[in-house]
Amino acid sequence: MSNIENLRKVITELKEILPNNSWSENKEILSPYLTEWRDRWRGQAPLLLLPKSTREVSLAVKICNQHNVPLTIQGGNTGLVGGQIPQGEILLSTKYLNQIRQLNEFSLIVESGCILQTIQELADSNNKLFPLSLASQGSATIGGLCSTNAGGVHVVRYGSMRDLVIGVEAVLADGTIFNSLNPLKKDNTGYNLTSLLLGAEGTLGIITAVQLKTYQKPVQQETLFLALDNLDNCLETYKIFKQTFTHELSLIELIPSEALKFVTEHIPKCSLPFTVSSPWYVLLQCESTHNAPLLNIIEETVKVLLENNIIIDAVLAKTIQQTKNLIKLRESISEAQKPQGGSIKHDISVPIGLIPEFITQATKAVEMLIPNCRPIPFGHLGDGNIHFNVSQPQGMDKNEYLSYWKKMNRIVHDIVIKLGGSISAEHGIGILKKEELAKRCDPVKYATMKSIKLALDPKKILNPRVLL
Amino acid sequence: MSNIENLRKVITELKEILPNNSWSENKEILSPYLTEWRDRWRGQAPLLLLPKSTREVSLAVKICNQHNVPLTIQGGNTGLVGGQIPQGEILLSTKYLNQIRQLNEFSLIVESGCILQTIQELADSNNKLFPLSLASQGSATIGGLCSTNAGGVHVVRYGSMRDLVIGVEAVLADGTIFNSLNPLKKDNTGYNLTSLLLGAEGTLGIITAVQLKTYQKPVQQETLFLALDNLDNCLETYKIFKQTFTHELSLIELIPSEALKFVTEHIPKCSLPFTVSSPWYVLLQCESTHNAPLLNIIEETVKVLLENNIIIDAVLAKTIQQTKNLIKLRESISEAQKPQGGSIKHDISVPIGLIPEFITQATKAVEMLIPNCRPIPFGHLGDGNIHFNVSQPQGMDKNEYLSYWKKMNRIVHDIVIKLGGSISAEHGIGILKKEELAKRCDPVKYATMKSIKLALDPKKILNPRVLL
Repeated sequence: MSNIENLRKVITELKEILPNNSWSENKEILSPYLTEWRDRWRGQAPLLLLPKSTREVSLAVKICNQHNVPLTIQGGNTGLVGGQIPQGEILLSTKYLNQIRQLNEFSLIVESGCILQTIQELADSNNKLFPLSLASQGSATIGGLCSTNAGGVHVVRYGSMRDLVIGVEAVLADGTIFNSLNPLKKDNTGYNLTSLLLGAEGTLGIITAVQLKTYQKPVQQETLFLALDNLDNCLETYKIFKQTFTHELSLIELIPSEALKFVTEHIPKCSLPFTVSSPWYVLLQCESTHNAPLLNIIEETVKVLLENNIIIDAVLAKTIQQTKNLIKLRESISEAQKPQGGSIKHDISVPIGLIPEFITQATKAVEMLIPNCRPIPFGHLGDGNIHFNVSQPQGMDKNEYLSYWKKMNRIVHDIVIKLGGSISAEHGIGILKKEELAKRCDPVKYATMKSIKLALDPKKILNPRVLL
Repeated sequence: MSNIENLRKVITELKEILPNNSWSENKEILSPYLTEWRDRWRGQAPLLLLPKSTREVSLAVKICNQHNVPLTIQGGNTGLVGGQIPQGEILLSTKYLNQIRQLNEFSLIVESGCILQTIQELADSNNKLFPLSLASQGSATIGGLCSTNAGGVHVVRYGSMRDLVIGVEAVLADGTIFNSLNPLKKDNTGYNLTSLLLGAEGTLGIITAVQLKTYQKPVQQETLFLALDNLDNCLETYKIFKQTFTHELSLIELIPSEALKFVTEHIPKCSLPFTVSSPWYVLLQCESTHNAPLLNIIEETVKVLLENNIIIDAVLAKTIQQTKNLIKLRESISEAQKPQGGSIKHDISVPIGLIPEFITQATKAVEMLIPNCRPIPFGHLGDGNIHFNVSQPQGMDKNEYLSYWKKMNRIVHDIVIKLGGSISAEHGIGILKKEELAKRCDPVKYATMKSIKLALDPKKILNPRVLL
């Protein structure tokens, strides 16, 4: 039987076994699943599966596995590395796996298709906090966020997705269901499979539900916007705040002058909170779950930083609206880069102390490659995670500029590796960085990952083009 | 070539390639490695390897792997499930892998042969805390503790070993070296192999070094000993303390009356801190890294518990010596059981709320099996982890009593599984519970673990008789 005949047979079988509203071949329905918002990938799929239960996922995977037919898995379609876009495979969307299964004092069990923002709001309405927070939270699904071990702006206090998940339910490549939901507090009966599935980008199993930790809501939160002269002072500011607010520092973001210029130019109702502009800005938040004298200590810290010329100026948000305005300056950076033409992106991390070194070296290197390009290095200062996005030179042809993508990646990643960093800090590998990973990854780690993939998905039916 | 000839050849090769002081065949030197303190297992080994570096471990494993010769791996030889005792395999001890490699503000990198107590003291002398604490800390090695994901009395606040480790160095079955020491704060380049190696009981790799988190030292610590009427009130006490001291509760141990009777009878300088004895006791500690009004809130909480008849009496340690005395009552339980004859042991966990139910059912069941046996259920109330150890009836023949081991295990484990618990909470599986695991483990989890083992150690040379 040819591949095409085999695929047709499987499609027929899937359509028979699943309810009519759990699949579609309609081009219009499929269309939004085959492109993504950055428009870097366009895909195709002969069939879209929209399972409504773990059982339906299991049934579908069992059939695909029997007949060696691969699946691409998609959550909220907000991924930045192309892993969610099928190239001829059957597409399985977790969108309708969206039940809330359990809600208790310290955790919630939700299905993988639930939207992050829904979960934040659910926790909030129960007087709890689910801390993961990132720009795409209105569309990103919990399953996708788990599969890519998502980060965001609160990692400095709460960790990444792997740190926020207690248990997992997942359909494995043979269609069996692994379940570690409601784990015991202590259970030493073998390997940590839960953690193995998190961050595996859907290559070892399809996450269908997870148990998420919830946290006490802070009773106080203070937001600061600082103006600084240079990168070394940004680092020093982080160190001093981290020292003073070890547990309270919940957000610390680096913003270059150029980024704010774009934001204030292109995004409505955004303005610089200072009268004079500076080369660098740092946005930070501290929060506390009890009534410690947070504000006093922040004001004292700011005073010391000013006296020692570590910062030039500081604005403290006095109202909720002021806080929102300051946060919006940071959150609008990616959007504000769009009207400036093409942007070549890097999601990298280095040891925190080497951030100034990295930005200096990488800036020099990309300006050498493409004179007048405009580096916009911003992001998570407290995690060593910089989004080193480079806007094209004004007036250059966008497509010509974007043709440098791989070349610029190589140059920037060379610096990252030299500094002991990672070429994917929080977005994952997907399709975009697969080649780079094969080249840059420690060979022992890479070989071990390949062995595990082969062992758990010998027919390579789960996201076969992703990661490895 | 016969197996014996093959083994002889490998032994010759190992002796040639390793320095003279990195191996031994001397019977007297080998002897203490072949028995263990509980005297449940006695082993044999044709050769003892005592590597002094990761490189030596790698060399040895490479040779063994080439020739399909299995290794048993031993840390401090304090394991309670027999995994460390060789039965004819070459024995590799990590005892001399004992260098401190790095010490910084938030972590330390130590080799796997370092003794836990040494590491606690090292952290302490740097004004930091390494919180793992258990009875065998004077002998247990970091590598063994990592491989068994050890728990102990501070899990309620700090988690088990997997929660305390940031990075790992390990020699894999083919002799290659996996290294995740000094990890970046964010690195999304694939599977979480670090967590997979922790708790794998040496079946996927030999841990040679780890990076451990260190914590701020508490500036206050309060120790309480409570007397209670029944198990439901013990549980209620836990709930109230956990609610009041979510982050501060650092130890909460359940102690039955019978256990304290044994301790005060057999252990010098131990006496009951109350004038009248009660059926149950709870030992607990709260600690804080800042100057919160800890003592006041504890005294208030105790007052409420007394007023509501949840506790009968309470003793608060006023001096360091008083604290030590109270802790010693708990720590001496296992030792004090020895003079009472044979003890059949269970290291189980159940959801915390089901502890009273478990103890009631299990007590009834074992008393039905062996009338007049003396159950001593003690341990980690805040983790749902009870050491359900059963002393023999007075006057019964010890060996006859111990012949009931498997039968009693089955009966107790049946109750554990029915209540959604685990047959190994913190000691691991080793040899002791291998059959029970095969029978009781979720088959999907078990099959997945087997696939991973086969993929990463296809020749089954690492601890081949352990776990699976």
